Amino acid sequence: MKEIKIYDSTLRDGAQAQGISFTVEDKLKITEAVDRLGISYIEAGNPGSNPKDLEFFQRVKKLKLKNVKVVAFGSTRRTNIKVEDDANVKSLLTADTEAVAIFGKSWDFHVYEVLRTTLDENLRMIYDTVEFFTKLGKEVIFDAEHFFDGYKANPEYAMKTIYTAIEAGASTVCLCDTNGGTFPNEISEITSYVVKNVRVPVGIHCHNDNGMAVANSILAVQAGATQVQGTINGIGERCGNANLCTIIPNLQIKANYKCIPDECMKSLTSIARYISEIANVIHNEKDPYVGGSAFAHKGGMHIDAVFKNPISFEHINPELVGNKRVILMSEVAGRSTILKKIHEVDPTIGKDSPEAKKIIDRLKELEHEGYQYEGAESSFELVIRKILGKYQPFFNLNQFKVIVGEPTIGEFNSSAMIKIRVGDQVEITAAEGCGPVNALDNALRKALERFYPEIKQMKLTDYKVRVLDSEAATAAKVRVLIESTDGKDMWTTIGVSTDIIEASWKALVDSVEYKLIKDKNGNNNIKNHVNENAENKH
Amino acid sequence: MKEIKIYDSTLRDGAQAQGISFTVEDKLKITEAVDRLGISYIEAGNPGSNPKDLEFFQRVKKLKLKNVKVVAFGSTRRTNIKVEDDANVKSLLTADTEAVAIFGKSWDFHVYEVLRTTLDENLRMIYDTVEFFTKLGKEVIFDAEHFFDGYKANPEYAMKTIYTAIEAGASTVCLCDTNGGTFPNEISEITSYVVKNVRVPVGIHCHNDNGMAVANSILAVQAGATQVQGTINGIGERCGNANLCTIIPNLQIKANYKCIPDECMKSLTSIARYISEIANVIHNEKDPYVGGSAFAHKGGMHIDAVFKNPISFEHINPELVGNKRVILMSEVAGRSTILKKIHEVDPTIGKDSPEAKKIIDRLKELEHEGYQYEGAESSFELVIRKILGKYQPFFNLNQFKVIVGEPTIGEFNSSAMIKIRVGDQVEITAAEGCGPVNALDNALRKALERFYPEIKQMKLTDYKVRVLDSEAATAAKVRVLIESTDGKDMWTTIGVSTDIIEASWKALVDSVEYKLIKDKNGNNNIKNHVNENAENKH
Repeated sequence: MKEIKIYDSTLRDGAQAQGISFTVEDKLKITEAVDRLGISYIEAGNPGSNPKDLEFFQRVKKLKLKNVKVVAFGSTRRTNIKVEDDANVKSLLTADTEAVAIFGKSWDFHVYEVLRTTLDENLRMIYDTVEFFTKLGKEVIFDAEHFFDGYKANPEYAMKTIYTAIEAGASTVCLCDTNGGTFPNEISEITSYVVKNVRVPVGIHCHNDNGMAVANSILAVQAGATQVQGTINGIGERCGNANLCTIIPNLQIKANYKCIPDECMKSLTSIARYISEIANVIHNEKDPYVGGSAFAHKGGMHIDAVFKNPISFEHINPELVGNKRVILMSEVAGRSTILKKIHEVDPTIGKDSPEAKKIIDRLKELEHEGYQYEGAESSFELVIRKILGKYQPFFNLNQFKVIVGEPTIGEFNSSAMIKIRVGDQVEITAAEGCGPVNALDNALRKALERFYPEIKQMKLTDYKVRVLDSEAATAAKVRVLIESTDGKDMWTTIGVSTDIIEASWKALVDSVEYKLIKDKNGNNNIKNHVNENAENKH
Repeated sequence: MKEIKIYDSTLRDGAQAQGISFTVEDKLKITEAVDRLGISYIEAGNPGSNPKDLEFFQRVKKLKLKNVKVVAFGSTRRTNIKVEDDANVKSLLTADTEAVAIFGKSWDFHVYEVLRTTLDENLRMIYDTVEFFTKLGKEVIFDAEHFFDGYKANPEYAMKTIYTAIEAGASTVCLCDTNGGTFPNEISEITSYVVKNVRVPVGIHCHNDNGMAVANSILAVQAGATQVQGTINGIGERCGNANLCTIIPNLQIKANYKCIPDECMKSLTSIARYISEIANVIHNEKDPYVGGSAFAHKGGMHIDAVFKNPISFEHINPELVGNKRVILMSEVAGRSTILKKIHEVDPTIGKDSPEAKKIIDRLKELEHEGYQYEGAESSFELVIRKILGKYQPFFNLNQFKVIVGEPTIGEFNSSAMIKIRVGDQVEITAAEGCGPVNALDNALRKALERFYPEIKQMKLTDYKVRVLDSEAATAAKVRVLIESTDGKDMWTTIGVSTDIIEASWKALVDSVEYKLIKDKNGNNNIKNHVNENAENKH
């Protein structure tokens, strides 16, 4: 089993991504998460370029990191000055890290067109800068920027740049496909050539502009590279960097390489999601291994086969990476999947019964209106109950009114009045909130607590808004998903309307009713949507 | 230049994706779009499984398609019955298409475990079904399901399944990596072996469970495959199918293959976006070639280099695929990028002036609050104007009140009252709408029209809501982006608040003010955020 050093650049190359802006706190949290995942290196910017980075390097020293080595990142010295006079080089020292990554130009075109200097001066810049840090006793990783484009244009010069870095003491040379356009066969061939001709470890750094960053990284490893640079979830400039959350399990679970401690692999999905949260980006649910859809089955035939044996439509056991199998509820799910859900409410309903048909028809109708129960099984259970007559409303709405005003008076700008009826008793009350939905949520719970004290156990944990037909602008239809918990269970409900308040109201009502039915039935009908019958035969 | 047949399965495999549900109208629109892109085949489900598909096949015949051939899709006959008695096989005939795709099992494990029959019976099922359609004069594409997993487990049997299909008359055999777990080196080797041993064209059908579907498809083509199956934007079950929007330009722009007519390539980005809209999924802005970030530059050094020569950080000229270069405004954009934006408002501001510093500091502050000007340059221009004293409010808000009520009285459930002041005149008015934001938008425009009739030219074209810290549930902070147009220009503005109404209000006000400043200044200060100075030297 060959060991691969994983080198994370989420804090540096990741921060170049559209929509990403890390605070110092964010950067520290990401460093700890990357450490927990057992990654070898984390690259964290240049303390000279930014006061935020300086603060980070000071505070990161106080963290107790077990696996990860923090790397400061900077360029070779500027043209025609002494390395010790270069402000950027000096600022790298203030990071006070054991290792530094120095990037230099390996493509002659960039030397002429961007640096606007001579090929020889560029070699001297590489030599001087690498030597400067080596002499200070630091581990120096040389990032050969645009190495593959450079090699294709002028192989002799590209090789000279890395030979120069090695001569000056670089401990690793990393071949970068900076523009992300190189093809897999080229990556294989060129990496293989470099590995045969240098005496230090070779790294690979790919970008995803041709959609092949992961494959390119894998092929480079198969050609002899032993360091892989990338980012968590592939965040990075343009189309992103090579996605470490795909590369690590590809190499470690499916090929014979060791990237991280085995016991860390199970935390891959949760750490990937955690970093999406910190980066404040929507987690890509289609991502291999760590996406919510990665092991989701929707087609009826596929679902049947997975019930027989999960290997039939899963390339690995999702538990290995801390993910899970999901069986989706939808009109193409097939009658048998919908029937399983119906049987959770009433096991006596036959497959071809008029009730089953009615439910399937209603599902199609609701999906047409914009409902999607794949992520909101609890609302779908309520639909089934209503059709089967197994539903009794816990309360009736007489009316509500929400008022939002500017300027704000006091702490909140929104207030909601609500009047409900439970049996023959009427409750009218009001509450304030940050925004209209929060005010309405507070008012509804306040009104119900007298009748159903168990409502106090429950709280909303997530609230999502999706605009369905955004071309209609402020009159567009929206889909609201609300995730709730009472400490024991977690459930998700849905509402759709052209009005965000109404959509939120529908999801709120479903959430409360689901909680009340659940408690009344002693939790009998509450099933996680992950199917427990499909054994893990992987 | 070798010709590659592109085979789109957006309507069939794409419909298996989590969150996708196509109407017949959607399917017809997608067929027309795929035809406009010059793709050779489109696979469109089974008329027998679903009345929606039956309607589709009837209506698609009335479309005037120039390039694309419509294919009906179904499985081999069931075990131990005559092919002519199989309901699924018969239903395929009702599609009345020139070509059909028949999938059959190539992995012995699936024959035993899922079909629960013998290896010989599976071969007969393949033979009978392919022969049945061939005899009717149809072009038959045989999809060898799980071919690669099958080949690795039992190469002899996997090969037998495709030999059988060819013997029965299949015009193409397509090798499927159904579980998406095969490595690129395996794809190359196995495809190469098949191509050498069969006499009909070979296709490739990859899934993205290991993040390498695009590379695997490219490598299969380099190994001799001449048909590539995939979907637009890679939508599909689990992690999706091979993304045709990446594969087509990879092969045609960067390698020496012909996939679609040259004149269609420029419509790739707009068709990809159009299909995301129809499928009602968020377009992945990080997608190669067709994503909004695919040619977006944020790091200061990269921006400088792209200004010198775009080749330095772009692997192709974005115009080739109908996309464009974007220079992002952010704290890491570098002083020079922000200065360019400042100079659009006032060309006399120096790079180290206190005004420039003040603007950069304010930008960092606002980004910290949750603002992000990368997609909302118009709001950023207003920030600059306010700091430079080049801003005079067009109106002052005295107050607004929005009321949302249930049950709805009349057509709308929301109404807004607004009171504004323009100079020494006060206007108070009210309007209704679908939801509170729409009501407020209508009221604001109504109040302003008396003073600024040009407001009538403008309309909102997009409205996006992003929940920033969704764990705070209904009290979460939201970011609202509003896109507006007056027929001549298009601009985007932003608002952030814990209250969706307040966030929307901020974005609405910016949008109106931007329009008024733009008209007052005769459009002088309005620049598209795509930089026009960077020449296209690609």
